[in-house]
Amino acid sequence: MPSSTAAILETIRPLFGDELDAVEREISHLLENDVALIPEVAKHVISSGGKRMRPILTLLSSRLSGYVGDRQIRLAVCVEFIHTATLLHDDVVDKSDLRRGAKTANNLWGNPASILVGDFLLSRAFQLMVGDGSLKVLKLLSDTSAIISEGEVLQLAHENNIENDLPTYLKIISAKTAQLFAAACQIGALLAERTEYEKPLFDFGHNLGLAFQIADDALDYSARREKLGKSIGGDFRESKATLPVILAWHKSDAEEKKFWIRTIREKNQWQGDLSRAVAIMEKYQVLKEAIDYAEKYVEKARKSMEIFTVSPEKEALLELLDFSVSREY
Amino acid sequence: MPSSTAAILETIRPLFGDELDAVEREISHLLENDVALIPEVAKHVISSGGKRMRPILTLLSSRLSGYVGDRQIRLAVCVEFIHTATLLHDDVVDKSDLRRGAKTANNLWGNPASILVGDFLLSRAFQLMVGDGSLKVLKLLSDTSAIISEGEVLQLAHENNIENDLPTYLKIISAKTAQLFAAACQIGALLAERTEYEKPLFDFGHNLGLAFQIADDALDYSARREKLGKSIGGDFRESKATLPVILAWHKSDAEEKKFWIRTIREKNQWQGDLSRAVAIMEKYQVLKEAIDYAEKYVEKARKSMEIFTVSPEKEALLELLDFSVSREY
Repeated sequence: MPSSTAAILETIRPLFGDELDAVEREISHLLENDVALIPEVAKHVISSGGKRMRPILTLLSSRLSGYVGDRQIRLAVCVEFIHTATLLHDDVVDKSDLRRGAKTANNLWGNPASILVGDFLLSRAFQLMVGDGSLKVLKLLSDTSAIISEGEVLQLAHENNIENDLPTYLKIISAKTAQLFAAACQIGALLAERTEYEKPLFDFGHNLGLAFQIADDALDYSARREKLGKSIGGDFRESKATLPVILAWHKSDAEEKKFWIRTIREKNQWQGDLSRAVAIMEKYQVLKEAIDYAEKYVEKARKSMEIFTVSPEKEALLELLDFSVSREY
Repeated sequence: MPSSTAAILETIRPLFGDELDAVEREISHLLENDVALIPEVAKHVISSGGKRMRPILTLLSSRLSGYVGDRQIRLAVCVEFIHTATLLHDDVVDKSDLRRGAKTANNLWGNPASILVGDFLLSRAFQLMVGDGSLKVLKLLSDTSAIISEGEVLQLAHENNIENDLPTYLKIISAKTAQLFAAACQIGALLAERTEYEKPLFDFGHNLGLAFQIADDALDYSARREKLGKSIGGDFRESKATLPVILAWHKSDAEEKKFWIRTIREKNQWQGDLSRAVAIMEKYQVLKEAIDYAEKYVEKARKSMEIFTVSPEKEALLELLDFSVSREY
């Protein structure tokens, strides 16, 4: 099995390549605007190395559900716009300077531009849905958008809380990540008007989203990944109480607990702290434990696909699922 | 004619008082949330002295159009949520500490909470519209939301530009203020399914919004208002190139131009600068000129109401219109 993102996407790309090209063209077209700052900022974020996971889920789920038509293109754009609006606001909230190795929009254009262009993209997403005209899709995505922002506020309230329990962590990532993955998949069933597929596809996306986010949070502390030359420690530098920290905290001795209190709760970090965090995590095998959690959601997601007979689209979705936790960590 | 906001609203309140109470109850109900920060922040902004101009416009326009039912309540809430989301983000963008004499949400809870609760309110507004189920209302308000954010970005690009021309200024206030006033009014025609009222009500709201914003921008430099003990100069301290500054700039001599360049373009303000700004504006009678512009839009708005026969609702809307520029300045 190919192990890199690029490789896996290349393998399954023939299934949706033309449609994804149409999505990209539509994005460019929809961002044209007399107010030059809008396309400038939006294109920077949208083109900076995102894998288009969510639009791909919409394209594949639509075909898997048997939908024939072209509404999936614009709705895939919608999903990507909602995601991008979230990224823009997240980076302001987290005061992030870098995302995927590139300078963030707030770093380049300042907070005001990031906030306002994020608002614009969210509004544009709703305009697209209204243009599509399905109240079911509108309900799904307006609920999703409200849940995402609730999750973001919940995260803000718990951000540097090392004593977060697992249920709180899961509630946060369920709202801020898994819900949009779930909606991206469920759109397929709505377009095909196959109500019996709605729940399985929603569940598939939701569990995939949970697995994806848990793996993402684990990867951020992966020593192996660091050896491969990839940047790690972004969450640590922002003192985020993600799953690896939560798991490590509960196993740590008194001395180690002091370390977490200083670096995460009090946000007071020194040279060498990231290495120490990684070392504590290795000592307690925390990343393996996190990936075990992720694998449980992978299994749940796989189960919800049983309703579908074998097809290239089903295989592709299952490959994306495997990929979500098998990334090099 | 009563001259204060409170007085005018009391005069016309019997017409929509019960409905406005229902709007307030609905707002409280819809803001209940397990994530405690959401109602905390949202209620602070929503209850801090707003006059509910936009919801009142929706209530009155619905009755004026002959609509009988209760959909106007939730849609009035929608309009207020969109407005409140904008206020929350505006105050972050402008780094404002005070709004209507009270501490802003970003001042009390920080930028992240203001950004994320703003996102939540906008999403909630869309959920409400979807619950209402009219694609026409959804189109009107999703277009409005996109236009507002475009206007905000445009304003950002031109903010401290004292050489802004009148058309640019009008384009900005048209998008960021007048569009929502227009939509709030047009909803009435949509609910009553009276297509012939759509344009007149949209135009009424739009011109009222322009007049209201121009008067608001003028009031911010009103010496008379200052003598009444009201706070002025908020826009000046934020170095905003609003209409009074634009008008003053074009009449100023070389020395005065230097003053505007320093205080507005270069945002470098000293003690006594506000008094000097007000003095230059008095010298060139700039506020009178601004109010003359506003009066033109008042006339346009009044004209678009001619389609309606006499009714208490029509009279109330016209009183609100007069009030929009006759506030003590």
